[in-house]
Amino acid sequence: MRVGLLTGGGDVPGLNAAIRAVVKHGEGHYGHSIIGFRNGWKGVVDGQAEPLTRQHIRNMLPVGGTLLGTARYHPRVEDGSMDAVLATLEAERIEALICIGGDGTLHAASKVAEAGVRIVAIPKTIDNDVWGTDASIGFDTAVTVATEAVDRIHTTAESHNRVMIVEVMGRSAGWIAATAGIAGGAEIVLAPEQPFDIVKIAKFLKHRHRAHASFSIVVVAEGAVPAEGTEMSYTTAYGKFGEIVAGSIAERLKFEIEQRTGFDTRVTVLGHVQRGGTPTPTDRILGSRFGVAAIDAVTRGESNVMTALRGDKVELVPLPEIAGKVRYVPDELLDVARALA
Amino acid sequence: MRVGLLTGGGDVPGLNAAIRAVVKHGEGHYGHSIIGFRNGWKGVVDGQAEPLTRQHIRNMLPVGGTLLGTARYHPRVEDGSMDAVLATLEAERIEALICIGGDGTLHAASKVAEAGVRIVAIPKTIDNDVWGTDASIGFDTAVTVATEAVDRIHTTAESHNRVMIVEVMGRSAGWIAATAGIAGGAEIVLAPEQPFDIVKIAKFLKHRHRAHASFSIVVVAEGAVPAEGTEMSYTTAYGKFGEIVAGSIAERLKFEIEQRTGFDTRVTVLGHVQRGGTPTPTDRILGSRFGVAAIDAVTRGESNVMTALRGDKVELVPLPEIAGKVRYVPDELLDVARALA
Amino acid sequence: MRVGLLTGGGDVPGLNAAIRAVVKHGEGHYGHSIIGFRNGWKGVVDGQAEPLTRQHIRNMLPVGGTLLGTARYHPRVEDGSMDAVLATLEAERIEALICIGGDGTLHAASKVAEAGVRIVAIPKTIDNDVWGTDASIGFDTAVTVATEAVDRIHTTAESHNRVMIVEVMGRSAGWIAATAGIAGGAEIVLAPEQPFDIVKIAKFLKHRHRAHASFSIVVVAEGAVPAEGTEMSYTTAYGKFGEIVAGSIAERLKFEIEQRTGFDTRVTVLGHVQRGGTPTPTDRILGSRFGVAAIDAVTRGESNVMTALRGDKVELVPLPEIAGKVRYVPDELLDVARALA
Amino acid sequence: MRVGLLTGGGDVPGLNAAIRAVVKHGEGHYGHSIIGFRNGWKGVVDGQAEPLTRQHIRNMLPVGGTLLGTARYHPRVEDGSMDAVLATLEAERIEALICIGGDGTLHAASKVAEAGVRIVAIPKTIDNDVWGTDASIGFDTAVTVATEAVDRIHTTAESHNRVMIVEVMGRSAGWIAATAGIAGGAEIVLAPEQPFDIVKIAKFLKHRHRAHASFSIVVVAEGAVPAEGTEMSYTTAYGKFGEIVAGSIAERLKFEIEQRTGFDTRVTVLGHVQRGGTPTPTDRILGSRFGVAAIDAVTRGESNVMTALRGDKVELVPLPEIAGKVRYVPDELLDVARALA
Repeated sequence: MRVGLLTGGGDVPGLNAAIRAVVKHGEGHYGHSIIGFRNGWKGVVDGQAEPLTRQHIRNMLPVGGTLLGTARYHPRVEDGSMDAVLATLEAERIEALICIGGDGTLHAASKVAEAGVRIVAIPKTIDNDVWGTDASIGFDTAVTVATEAVDRIHTTAESHNRVMIVEVMGRSAGWIAATAGIAGGAEIVLAPEQPFDIVKIAKFLKHRHRAHASFSIVVVAEGAVPAEGTEMSYTTAYGKFGEIVAGSIAERLKFEIEQRTGFDTRVTVLGHVQRGGTPTPTDRILGSRFGVAAIDAVTRGESNVMTALRGDKVELVPLPEIAGKVRYVPDELLDVARALA
Repeated sequence: MRVGLLTGGGDVPGLNAAIRAVVKHGEGHYGHSIIGFRNGWKGVVDGQAEPLTRQHIRNMLPVGGTLLGTARYHPRVEDGSMDAVLATLEAERIEALICIGGDGTLHAASKVAEAGVRIVAIPKTIDNDVWGTDASIGFDTAVTVATEAVDRIHTTAESHNRVMIVEVMGRSAGWIAATAGIAGGAEIVLAPEQPFDIVKIAKFLKHRHRAHASFSIVVVAEGAVPAEGTEMSYTTAYGKFGEIVAGSIAERLKFEIEQRTGFDTRVTVLGHVQRGGTPTPTDRILGSRFGVAAIDAVTRGESNVMTALRGDKVELVPLPEIAGKVRYVPDELLDVARALA
Repeated sequence: MRVGLLTGGGDVPGLNAAIRAVVKHGEGHYGHSIIGFRNGWKGVVDGQAEPLTRQHIRNMLPVGGTLLGTARYHPRVEDGSMDAVLATLEAERIEALICIGGDGTLHAASKVAEAGVRIVAIPKTIDNDVWGTDASIGFDTAVTVATEAVDRIHTTAESHNRVMIVEVMGRSAGWIAATAGIAGGAEIVLAPEQPFDIVKIAKFLKHRHRAHASFSIVVVAEGAVPAEGTEMSYTTAYGKFGEIVAGSIAERLKFEIEQRTGFDTRVTVLGHVQRGGTPTPTDRILGSRFGVAAIDAVTRGESNVMTALRGDKVELVPLPEIAGKVRYVPDELLDVARALA
Repeated sequence: MRVGLLTGGGDVPGLNAAIRAVVKHGEGHYGHSIIGFRNGWKGVVDGQAEPLTRQHIRNMLPVGGTLLGTARYHPRVEDGSMDAVLATLEAERIEALICIGGDGTLHAASKVAEAGVRIVAIPKTIDNDVWGTDASIGFDTAVTVATEAVDRIHTTAESHNRVMIVEVMGRSAGWIAATAGIAGGAEIVLAPEQPFDIVKIAKFLKHRHRAHASFSIVVVAEGAVPAEGTEMSYTTAYGKFGEIVAGSIAERLKFEIEQRTGFDTRVTVLGHVQRGGTPTPTDRILGSRFGVAAIDAVTRGESNVMTALRGDKVELVPLPEIAGKVRYVPDELLDVARALA
């Protein structure tokens, strides 16, 4: 059986573990040929295919990124790229396709499956917001990186009497903010799930510093937003060339907090370091389990499904079921973050 | 409300996160008084109690071990220590007791609950074999330490044409062996769940080294055993003073492998490093969630229950239900370990 | 003997190791009383003194920051604060003062020594630019943090065909940039010691990406500057409220590189994470050796000197000799960075 | 120019950084051809040569071990292997040879140089005992691994009232023991440089535990020895098959301490984990600097010299000068370890 494989969307640690599992189990156990496509759907459209063998995956388990390359690109019916995908798959005699990716990649995978291609998807995203699975590849490493940063900033903040804002990833859901906030012992955690009130935050900080503390740490998801109807005067700053230069939520918070409390406030935007580096054991194991499960599934003839972690089990969920849904941080986790502030 | 708190059994990273959560949430949200007992059940028997306040838990979130101390000791009816426990709890006017521990501590907790004390337990064990919960405090850190060791040994083994055996913890269940084996890319994983055949292992190693490889890594749980009926001539070595000096499973494997393959074989016994150091974010979060959930539960009047992780939810399970049961590694995980060898 | 102790300037990992060594060796070996001042020179001016004992330093060896607190404040003759320093030292009957700090703190220490106070200084700065010593406390940890970040970004950059700019600390000297650049395998390292030519950089990047590479990493010290006479059109961007919002060297480079090459360019500013967290063994050892040497020196009656690492030896250098001098990165190190690009 | 390259002796992290620097600088700057020999001197004797290009060193900077392989083997005049070395070098038209290794490799390098081959050596050893240089490749990573282990054991020991013995590498000199002992805050450090008195150690431990402490950590170099004339009854234990099973210094210490103090004593032998894994920035930088300096040196026509770190400079020292000498831990460092116990 010829099985295609691609990784799409932003890269995350743990992708190589999944690729390695697909190749080792597919080739070693079933005797399949694994065909890798470069740079996600882009490579399928362009016909960039190459056989993947044990040679390619040697020593890749602890390496971040993806040996296949990736791209933030999705095929569409309108511009003919969906046809190009189907043409390449036929030309390469691909009998089944394993797609590793986040929302966008999974959505495209479902569309391709509906066009008659046998597809099994594997969820990855440091945002952890793919619906239908308890965990996606990359999240645990991102939380570990973010927590290390909060730990480091903790000792600095303590010595200096300050408010330190750490901005982490998470556009629609605040998984990294909530978990790294709890793990790092942040005083305030701001997630998209619960819009914040800057007046209350300023009041809390003033009270806290007056009472006893010499510093506070705020962990904010990039997608956090002020509650409707609350004051938040400062929105965006424009640079010399008209580009937005200071519109991040962390910069806006800094301005508001300094205006309202007078406390020296510093911002750290973690950015790309959250997406890179050696995957944690958890992400390597998740990638390995999903890779093995995906090969088992395509061999059994399953299609239009996604591997998912449910409790301590790996299961399959129908891809159409997860489309358009976001997995939000449960209230219990946000409550723990608040309880331990 | 006066709530007692103890940590029993071997110490693990993440205990302080749970203690901190109990104190912060118990004192801060409910206004309870938290009374800490030193050194597990031993401290209850001896009446070693002291109020725990926010002062004690400051900066303890990233610190391994337990600020309360612990002991491998359990009260028994026969020697009067169970009576001593009840007497101390009454003398200290403890209205509820939160017990953090593994099998032994939880078993004792259930007995004390049956004697009429309101008890909520929190599971911790690096072996991860407490029944009824997807995870126990300490496991994730232990896996991380073990995987780092396998990663380090990987580069050494590669340069030298050898068999490297890494012995990890796990008496009844092979959770650390299976997960660190997968995450570290071990060639052979030996867990108590599946007794091994030394003849097959030797054959596999000879085949592998003849074919292409210059090294192999074996991760073995301390509780792994040879399959009944298989040859395993070497059992135990006795030292000058009659003590057992080389009876560990890793030493026995080394002897057998060298005898049967002629390959230079080295042993690393990880030992106590698996139990110590800064907890991973996962263990800090688990400890924090369990601590908050335990306080919520005792306040609601629950008793004879244990906090448990089920999927991404924290729930309560009856303590008597978990007694005497071991949570084994599921076949799927052992299969993944074998598939990726 | 009553020995005062303070930490001044920005905090760095390894300060607690030095404090611990001063207390353990001073109290344990010589029987001195160690008096700690809070928040650097500010605490001396304000008379914030407290005895430091073994109790205070327990478990502090692996902890970042400084248990004494610190402040970016230096006493001056003009405003009477120098007199306040001398008054406090007399009131507290301080016979010798150990000052741990960077340029500013050391300069003030020399002034106080000239006023007749017995002073031994210990150098700390993540910038590593204190003259007269091969290493200052905090530098090794900062390099480790910066290298980890470059490692992480490496895997991300590789998957995406990009230029990644990492801005690290270093105002006058480019020690972190040069070392983390070499250790992380950066393509371009920009340090204050060698002003850069943006035209050459853009040409190099275009050539490199055309030839074979899909990404490039630039590590830039915050104090790096364009060479005189070279074009660098974009200087600073102003926000809505007139504040400078995008004047960092990394932001300026990003703009120039994107304009000149068309490559997608991303910026990571490491900021405060470089100053915090658990010190590396090297910084703990350096702090420990300097602390012991400082106590030995004050006991012998030395004054107006600084502990210094020279090769593998700890020596003393006269404080006035180091005043106003910056220890630049040697050409050999910058050449290695360039040779390995 | 055709430049040969080999790595000999035990492998250490940082070797690939040196190999990468030799290839990048040799090929990129000078246009040399770099010829790699597999498995140290063994590969030269056997004629296992292959051209090394930029392709081979891609992404190897953070990878432990050596991509060339290594062997603990040295050519000798007596068995004709020295002639075989010269024959291979001539057959491969090698104009200069760069040898990366420890004592044994360096000694052989000097012999080969005396036979007329242009040779530049690079020192590596986790023991750090090569004479003539402040540091050798691999030491800093080994210290970091050992310190992490001591840190982890610290939290475990604290909770349990015990003596924990950690055995680290160091046959002739106690560099890892002294530095990891200081960095990890060990109570007792035993190095080969200062033979120990078990009676004094037992007395110290009893006094310490009686006074206040609940645990003690002993860091011992594998080459530590009892002082002549002191009692040390227990020497070696023999296994069932006559092999030595418990002769390590740590096991002997454990027996003596338990006999003399009654304290529960546990042993951790770090072993091979000290030799593997990602090199620290310090080892990557040292390898990079030494690699560049070695290529510069062979190109200039230098021979029979070794690259050396002196303070913050890289220099060359004559190979014959270092032969047969061991670089011991200076008294000052051992004094600091004792002062901070």
